[in-house]
Amino acid sequence: MQNVTIGDVAKAAGVSPATVSRVLNANQGVADELRQRVVAAVDQLGYQPNSQARSLRTRATSVLGLIISDITNPFFPEIARGVEDAAHAAGFSVVLANTDEDLAKEQRYLEVAAAERMAGVVLAPASSAETDIGVLRSRGIPVVTVDRRLLGHPVDSVTVDNLAAAREATLYLVGTGCRRIGFVGGPLATTTAADRLAGYREGLAEAGLPFDPDLVAHGDYRIDGGRTASKHLLQLSPDALFVSNNLMTIGAITALDDAGLRHPHDIALVGFDDQTWQTGLLPPLTLVTQPTYELGKRAATALLDRIRTPEAPPNDVVLPATLAVHEPRR
Amino acid sequence: MQNVTIGDVAKAAGVSPATVSRVLNANQGVADELRQRVVAAVDQLGYQPNSQARSLRTRATSVLGLIISDITNPFFPEIARGVEDAAHAAGFSVVLANTDEDLAKEQRYLEVAAAERMAGVVLAPASSAETDIGVLRSRGIPVVTVDRRLLGHPVDSVTVDNLAAAREATLYLVGTGCRRIGFVGGPLATTTAADRLAGYREGLAEAGLPFDPDLVAHGDYRIDGGRTASKHLLQLSPDALFVSNNLMTIGAITALDDAGLRHPHDIALVGFDDQTWQTGLLPPLTLVTQPTYELGKRAATALLDRIRTPEAPPNDVVLPATLAVHEPRR
Repeated sequence: MQNVTIGDVAKAAGVSPATVSRVLNANQGVADELRQRVVAAVDQLGYQPNSQARSLRTRATSVLGLIISDITNPFFPEIARGVEDAAHAAGFSVVLANTDEDLAKEQRYLEVAAAERMAGVVLAPASSAETDIGVLRSRGIPVVTVDRRLLGHPVDSVTVDNLAAAREATLYLVGTGCRRIGFVGGPLATTTAADRLAGYREGLAEAGLPFDPDLVAHGDYRIDGGRTASKHLLQLSPDALFVSNNLMTIGAITALDDAGLRHPHDIALVGFDDQTWQTGLLPPLTLVTQPTYELGKRAATALLDRIRTPEAPPNDVVLPATLAVHEPRR
Repeated sequence: MQNVTIGDVAKAAGVSPATVSRVLNANQGVADELRQRVVAAVDQLGYQPNSQARSLRTRATSVLGLIISDITNPFFPEIARGVEDAAHAAGFSVVLANTDEDLAKEQRYLEVAAAERMAGVVLAPASSAETDIGVLRSRGIPVVTVDRRLLGHPVDSVTVDNLAAAREATLYLVGTGCRRIGFVGGPLATTTAADRLAGYREGLAEAGLPFDPDLVAHGDYRIDGGRTASKHLLQLSPDALFVSNNLMTIGAITALDDAGLRHPHDIALVGFDDQTWQTGLLPPLTLVTQPTYELGKRAATALLDRIRTPEAPPNDVVLPATLAVHEPRR
């Protein structure tokens, strides 16, 4: 087995060694028919590509991993659809793993991706500082983070401009006359939560309003966490709540309900993400909307680019998030 | 490489050959520390288990595949959580793939699962008749279907009693005085859609009402399909709609809205699945509710049982679905 060379594979497949190399390096531009012949010859001869190429698939189907942090948040299935569409168009399959924002589970799935020698991984890291992608990097498996960034790892990322979006939402609330804006933030281990909090603070500063740490409560990016954080803030009589995630926005609405408060009559409310509202069944609400599907699509594209050109410098793609104003009359 | 025996692995790992065999056969009851030593020895020596055991993992992490048909339907992420929890408790990881009810995508992911030599696959098949699991069966990789059954393949399944649930919902509507009950069905290629339609017909027959094929419209288990099917049925002036899937229920509500009809004043409505209603933001509705998380958990348990005892006869687990009556006053 150890004596099989790239030349033997080329001969068996009836192609040039350069074509074998292009297939092994997952380069585009090799006709499917040739690619299949090469893959069949690799399998038949048991050819082992060298360690540089080891991370690349030598099977008929090339597989990308997508590791997300909460499959029950509709944001991530939408990301997944974007990743899948871009991957499928390039001849790759996508397998998905759900970490539940749990670092141990995340590490386990990073190890699975390494053991399976996936062609690359799109990752929404559970923690900007503690997530450790070393197991992939040591095997030369490229990683692109999506939605969130990793600090201290020079890898590609595809995110939205959370800071600008949160700043804009805060200034919008100030513009409607709000002065005591409660902020429901997310888990600070994520860059999304840190950036959105920073945007809220920038918005306040730009409007000449003081930052009051008491008016900030952090939830877990889930319904119940948003409800609890909102309930806490409502005791401080804010004139607005800005909720920095979709599921927590649902939690905030139930908290207003519990407190007998009506939006926008008694308190202003701005939420995040519009998937849940796309059913057409919920009351209108001003929301920071993210190009979720596009985030996934661009992340897969960035990963495919990285697979083709491993040596290019890391690239951060930042997409805009926009404030969609939908207010019922007061 | 071909000369490495199970005895060599046992010697290198400092365990008995029986322990190596237990690890290779994914049996429980081997201490983690021993398991890791065996897996390390297998990797180091490049030991190839025989063809019977080839489908079982020889890496540090054992992986189950979960192939679902629509990741954007919250029903399936909830299934996934059940599968994950049961798998993790047994030391397995789960990777997920989404077929979008597309047979070609599904076949591709079955091939990925085979190429990756996954320990087993939980599958919600896109089609009861056309889904082909041959690529897994030929490699001895066990399959358990969840939510839906496969016809013509003797594999384990974990489903709910869709027929009984649809029959009960139909009889409930008859009991409230409805006589022209429109039925919004799903894609008939799935056993869930066929069983729910059969239950609707049984309910009508039991109530002595005629079955009118005009009062049946089929959607695609998505919001828009439910809206279109409901819109069509509403032209026939039914006194009730029974919608056989969660997303199509949302579509039906928007169709009622479009037509200026109010439930329950103008028309009765019974829907399916309660995930979307768990947010607490939607009006109350009588729903057929499935033990979704439990479905996933039981499917993973059945798969783990199957991995341990490949020769046992196939088993169909059928969980009850219940009618949860939540009616606003007329």
